[in-house]
Amino acid sequence: MQHILAVDIGGTKIAVGIAERSVFAERGTLARIVTERVPAPGTPAAVVPRVIAIARELLGELSDPDPLLSGIGIAIGGPLDHREGVVINFPHLPEWRNVPLRDMLSDALGVPALLDNDANLGALGEHAWGAGRGVDDMVYMTISTGIGGGVIVGGRLLHGVGSAAGEVGHITVQTGGPRCPCGNAGCLEMMASGTAIARRARQAVAEFPDAGAGILEQAGGDPLSIRAEGVWAAALEGDALAIGLWEETAEYLAIGLAAIVHVLAPQVMVLGGGVAQTDERFLDAVRSRMRDHVGYVPLERISVVRSALGSNSPLIGAAVLALEAGRDRQ
Amino acid sequence: MQHILAVDIGGTKIAVGIAERSVFAERGTLARIVTERVPAPGTPAAVVPRVIAIARELLGELSDPDPLLSGIGIAIGGPLDHREGVVINFPHLPEWRNVPLRDMLSDALGVPALLDNDANLGALGEHAWGAGRGVDDMVYMTISTGIGGGVIVGGRLLHGVGSAAGEVGHITVQTGGPRCPCGNAGCLEMMASGTAIARRARQAVAEFPDAGAGILEQAGGDPLSIRAEGVWAAALEGDALAIGLWEETAEYLAIGLAAIVHVLAPQVMVLGGGVAQTDERFLDAVRSRMRDHVGYVPLERISVVRSALGSNSPLIGAAVLALEAGRDRQ
Repeated sequence: MQHILAVDIGGTKIAVGIAERSVFAERGTLARIVTERVPAPGTPAAVVPRVIAIARELLGELSDPDPLLSGIGIAIGGPLDHREGVVINFPHLPEWRNVPLRDMLSDALGVPALLDNDANLGALGEHAWGAGRGVDDMVYMTISTGIGGGVIVGGRLLHGVGSAAGEVGHITVQTGGPRCPCGNAGCLEMMASGTAIARRARQAVAEFPDAGAGILEQAGGDPLSIRAEGVWAAALEGDALAIGLWEETAEYLAIGLAAIVHVLAPQVMVLGGGVAQTDERFLDAVRSRMRDHVGYVPLERISVVRSALGSNSPLIGAAVLALEAGRDRQ
Repeated sequence: MQHILAVDIGGTKIAVGIAERSVFAERGTLARIVTERVPAPGTPAAVVPRVIAIARELLGELSDPDPLLSGIGIAIGGPLDHREGVVINFPHLPEWRNVPLRDMLSDALGVPALLDNDANLGALGEHAWGAGRGVDDMVYMTISTGIGGGVIVGGRLLHGVGSAAGEVGHITVQTGGPRCPCGNAGCLEMMASGTAIARRARQAVAEFPDAGAGILEQAGGDPLSIRAEGVWAAALEGDALAIGLWEETAEYLAIGLAAIVHVLAPQVMVLGGGVAQTDERFLDAVRSRMRDHVGYVPLERISVVRSALGSNSPLIGAAVLALEAGRDRQ
């Protein structure tokens, strides 16, 4: 039987999934997914052989005595050249500079491979098998330690110059806000990512020590241990400072999403990543605040929803890419 | 000979152009364009018959003894349903509510017609025959009394829900800025349109009467007569307050254009309308400030240029639409 492999290389974990080609093409599900921490020290020399080893294990474990592999799809963060299959750099791990990852995996496993940005593949996954099925125009935004995105227009993934379409984390949502490593100030990612929520919470706790007791408690009393998850937990317990921080977060996201609405007017906006997975109440707050920032676009016809595939959106997107990579082999 | 008609209905003027179908298809030029002030009182009952009369005059004046009309393309501002050919409303003129403009012109002249938003057709015109020829992905932005836009992706005009894609004038570029009629605050249109430049100049002159002498002089001494053109003229004469106002304008435009870059990463961004036509120095200021707001998208591969068709972009776009309208008749 023909099989496909999907690979997702992140800053902290790697995931490899396998499926029978025909089963995935019909149902969009992977038969097995192996997820591991990125092997130390996180260099290409450490990560790539481990991905290949997992792929071989997955193929070896199939009941099929003579499994065939038809294609590989690879998701990875950071700037890349999807046409050449080269990772230009990967800010979260060392020594990833101009790595021809597509050909490395393709050569090792002897089948065609395709490579794309993880947020682009999140969009592709959600469009093919998730919250954006059947729509022409949609945006996927992943909100976790950073904020990335992917854009589908006319049913096709939009790459843009330098594969940089969907860099929605760097839309300005707070003019004169904190400086971002990208050079801009007040970027969405600087205000509403998990990292940003934790930073803003630490600042708020330092400024208002009395009001910050609930957030601090969630962090075991150590301001440096404050995380977005703890701020959310404090908000659920009714902590006013934590609730305020989440309301601000909803406001920043609403301004960023409104900017996208004013460019694309997409049918669906899919929010993935840990921050968006918190709770339907948070999404309601985002939707409500979007109405303050959008007047002339019929927002009632734009769905703002959580990702249907959760943290697997990029991996499922990689599997869609694997189908495409192996098209000639079918 | 087969001919096409292009119609552009604006808040202050109407324009009707005519061309031989084959000539326009080859060269993108109109043989004749009639431009008039909108006939009083600007209602559909006043405007539509006048457009029809001009069209008949243009047809009658052709040397061709038996001219044929194959299609009409119509550009108009404001919310509309391009599929149904209905103007939902037209904020600049009275009594334009659910006007079936496409069918009114089509019935009167006996040929198929198509209707679209003027900024969308500006994008279509610049893509087909202007500054965006041959590119896949581009954005057109018109900066005059208001700010509108159109988006081309994969060589095709993007409409989005409610034909509202490209409403780029309502991207937030000044958080907490002045309230916009759309409901949002600090919209690009509220900060960088010709109207906004005049408003900001009036405020600055009221605040700093001494520094405002140069701007006031351009307005004949009357603050209420301050217009963006006069602020530009004062800046050219070295007036510091006027120069500052234009630098601020470049900054607001840069933030708005950067937001679009972060969504689409288009190859070309075409700026039309009076504000963008000022001077290449102003565009240089916009480009320079965009570099402050864009880090991870290769801006050196994105052209930010003035419209090649000037104020005719929507009319040329309407002619492109007229070709499409008349396709079955060819």
